[in-house]
Amino acid sequence: MLETDYMELAIQMAAKTKGQTVPNPVVGCVIVKDSEIVGLGAHLKAGDPHAERHALAMAGEKAKEAVMYVTLEPCSHYGKTPPCADAIIEAGISKVFIASLDPNPKVSGKGITKLKQAGIVVETGTHKAEADALNKEFFHFIRTSKPYVTLKTASSIDGKIATSSGESQWITGEEARKDGHRLRHENDAILVGVETIIQDNPMLTARLSNGGHHPIRIILDSTLRIPLTSHVVTDTQADTWVVTTNRASKEAREALEKTGVTIFTVAGDTIKITEILTIIGKQQVSSLLVEGGGTVNDSFLRAGEFQCLIKYMAPMIIGGEQARSSFSGKGFSNLSDVPRLELVNMELIGQDVKFVFHKREE
Amino acid sequence: MLETDYMELAIQMAAKTKGQTVPNPVVGCVIVKDSEIVGLGAHLKAGDPHAERHALAMAGEKAKEAVMYVTLEPCSHYGKTPPCADAIIEAGISKVFIASLDPNPKVSGKGITKLKQAGIVVETGTHKAEADALNKEFFHFIRTSKPYVTLKTASSIDGKIATSSGESQWITGEEARKDGHRLRHENDAILVGVETIIQDNPMLTARLSNGGHHPIRIILDSTLRIPLTSHVVTDTQADTWVVTTNRASKEAREALEKTGVTIFTVAGDTIKITEILTIIGKQQVSSLLVEGGGTVNDSFLRAGEFQCLIKYMAPMIIGGEQARSSFSGKGFSNLSDVPRLELVNMELIGQDVKFVFHKREE
Repeated sequence: MLETDYMELAIQMAAKTKGQTVPNPVVGCVIVKDSEIVGLGAHLKAGDPHAERHALAMAGEKAKEAVMYVTLEPCSHYGKTPPCADAIIEAGISKVFIASLDPNPKVSGKGITKLKQAGIVVETGTHKAEADALNKEFFHFIRTSKPYVTLKTASSIDGKIATSSGESQWITGEEARKDGHRLRHENDAILVGVETIIQDNPMLTARLSNGGHHPIRIILDSTLRIPLTSHVVTDTQADTWVVTTNRASKEAREALEKTGVTIFTVAGDTIKITEILTIIGKQQVSSLLVEGGGTVNDSFLRAGEFQCLIKYMAPMIIGGEQARSSFSGKGFSNLSDVPRLELVNMELIGQDVKFVFHKREE
Repeated sequence: MLETDYMELAIQMAAKTKGQTVPNPVVGCVIVKDSEIVGLGAHLKAGDPHAERHALAMAGEKAKEAVMYVTLEPCSHYGKTPPCADAIIEAGISKVFIASLDPNPKVSGKGITKLKQAGIVVETGTHKAEADALNKEFFHFIRTSKPYVTLKTASSIDGKIATSSGESQWITGEEARKDGHRLRHENDAILVGVETIIQDNPMLTARLSNGGHHPIRIILDSTLRIPLTSHVVTDTQADTWVVTTNRASKEAREALEKTGVTIFTVAGDTIKITEILTIIGKQQVSSLLVEGGGTVNDSFLRAGEFQCLIKYMAPMIIGGEQARSSFSGKGFSNLSDVPRLELVNMELIGQDVKFVFHKREE
């Protein structure tokens, strides 16, 4: 294998653990000696050893004078586990390739400095873009203390999510819906408006064929209209948080509290998107999937509070002025105010097209 | 070259003449002898010699015992030119590969029979799908006597063609707009509603860097509200046809007739899409590009009178319930009534995505 291939393998291992390491980033690590892989590791779960530790353990004595490929800068501080930089130095690694730097400006580069001071050769930048993309949610969260927000829509070619009579099951095909469950698995939390709960009573869980990590379910409900019998209230598959205002009645609040649902009350009469993100960021929610209807989507859009849009487009035109769209509400008056997106991927999923757009940073 | 490569070359020549052969199909022809190309031809313009004639002329004496690759079954009847099958036989061609059969059920297969009766070996089916696709508009027209209809939309990710305040220039980028001019070049006629003329006063011409074939401009205008000063009335770059009803006043009709515009009057108070297509099909319009606003698009959609949808999608979300969509009007109430489309191509054009959908035949 070429040197770059080892980093690719490290990235592939990290990619496959996406969704299971929250609130930590995904990391992969490969240790090579005399052109043979002697250690492999990935970070599997918060609290578990880091990728480097797993790889060093596998390599054992062979780590001496070996080369390490790791997708993220090794940590240099004591967290739940001791610093990986120390372990790398102790094991006698001679050279370390690093793809992504630590996103936290307070510690970024410190791991590298520690390695270099111990006489280890460090090379950075290999596959940086790919490795950064793997942890884009985590990096965003570390920088902003707010979750990385993905808006998800599933609509017809003309952007409709239901016919004029309200029919909406199913617009996209089974494979696209499965892919949507994977998105839920990969996000810490999922957010919808209370209207979606009232209309559709969804479970909002990640139903993958091998199980899945259910996101925390966050419901925007300024007056606490949420039915106490709804799935997200009664089932115990995942935590449910309801964000409300002081307009909610004391009775509704007390009744809901008894069910075990967590209630967050924001100041003012309306729920401001930025405020929600700050609140749930404090609760260590680093990634949020918004499956709102048109009004919720519009609120995130106009607040500029999203980083990614994932759109599933079914090969049909529904038409109709009265048919609901994936974005409703006020929208933008001036084209110059419209946020510009960058298409980063499009692919066929069954008969539907899946698009991934990132919001361009100003 | 492999044998199939010669047919590919014939198809490539035919493809490049798209738009200039109307009302005839595009056809390419390659003649090969002893592994060398001895003749090349394409049909260039209605009334001009067919592709086979050009290729035979180039080959001259070398056509004897040579192999011909032709994208469409050679004609066997006298039209504006004598039958190509006769010329092929006279030239002494020994074998003919044919991609597409003649779409006219009355003559389909007759050219092949004539060749076979003269002792020529005929092979059909090579690259049939590609060759059929080249002339899909022509084939549709021959079968139905109505033009092949392409709906073209250019919108944001959420299907909007303007902001809530009406701003619409420009949603898609320059490259997508250029590609739109190529569509005009390739279609016999272009159709819009009179509202588009009143609002935007477009020229509806094909403005390509090397000039272009301007489509006939067809305006739907049930009460003849079209301004006599609009570009499509005053300029002489292309013919303009106005389709109206008996609700139009005699004065408006007389004033418009004086400008040289052709007026078609349909029966009844409203303009029915199927009726328009029958009328313009009789005028030898074999392909029609619809650049209507939401209402015109909705009429074609609900009438089921389209074969192709070309969508340019700009990487932005405009939002807004009041913002105009590419499809408005009534649309469909039931998902089971919605026509299913097949995505046949998607590509990036500048920063926009271009989709080509074909309507699935029932």
